[in-house]
Amino acid sequence: MSTAAFSVDFKGYFKVARDNPSSKDWTNFELFVNIIDLKLFGQNKDLGEIGVSLNKDILSTGQIFPASAPNGAAKCRIATGVVFDMPQLGMKVFNKEPILLMNEHVTSIPPVDDPNGHALLFLLPLFDQANPSGKAVAHLTSLRYGADNYISQAEVKSFQEKQLG
Amino acid sequence: MSTAAFSVDFKGYFKVARDNPSSKDWTNFELFVNIIDLKLFGQNKDLGEIGVSLNKDILSTGQIFPASAPNGAAKCRIATGVVFDMPQLGMKVFNKEPILLMNEHVTSIPPVDDPNGHALLFLLPLFDQANPSGKAVAHLTSLRYGADNYISQAEVKSFQEKQLG
Repeated sequence: MSTAAFSVDFKGYFKVARDNPSSKDWTNFELFVNIIDLKLFGQNKDLGEIGVSLNKDILSTGQIFPASAPNGAAKCRIATGVVFDMPQLGMKVFNKEPILLMNEHVTSIPPVDDPNGHALLFLLPLFDQANPSGKAVAHLTSLRYGADNYISQAEVKSFQEKQLG
Repeated sequence: MSTAAFSVDFKGYFKVARDNPSSKDWTNFELFVNIIDLKLFGQNKDLGEIGVSLNKDILSTGQIFPASAPNGAAKCRIATGVVFDMPQLGMKVFNKEPILLMNEHVTSIPPVDDPNGHALLFLLPLFDQANPSGKAVAHLTSLRYGADNYISQAEVKSFQEKQLG
């Protein structure tokens, strides 16, 4: 088994569909969210261009949980399934266990206030779409993200129309 | 939505099937493990007796990863699916996202050296077996465990034969 570690910076967006909360009480509501679109692009000298998109075979579902006190923080989790397209390697890899985006310090909804987000994961296996029942072909060791600003429709469009090498 | 938090101490065991490593090189091997049996018992004044067993509908698969240096630590992950049987409530709940048992400080194999293990999870949804496609009925907020000693066959047998309430 040979291993190599790669670190890649991605740029792009994700889009969240949010239900109406069951109540406006900050300490007592039920509120579900789904990620319904996601496009990220990065590049690495060994892996080539990488495009990340939602895995259309599964739902990326989540929930915002109420705070325990009126001035406390709410919490958010979204269990995300994506596909990493690496055309230079001729390979698309995907996760079976969710990539868990989470935020323990939600102070407003939508929680677009998290510049230092990270996914909760540990050596998360990634599988080859061409051999989905085979062994993991890679492991995701870390995923950090910022979810702290909106982008314009023109920027969204340019990510959507982007073609990999 | 009403919420209440419960903390329960469990006693029991789990049993791991382990493949042969592909090599004896501590920095370069491939080694898969599965949890193939698990029995835990606990009690809570509101929930009553609770029995935990493996979810037979799915595999609880894992892997031990080599160390990055000859004197470094190996790492282990096992993605576990279980059923919490709560007969006093007339309810069995199960996880869809894995309960991830992990150990970043493996110094020998088998890694029976971890008195302070914890599962990597965040508000992990639990579902009612009687309504598996319904909303989550509870969330697992924390799971700590010790995996630092073997038990006798007699102890295993007594857990296996234990009946809830």
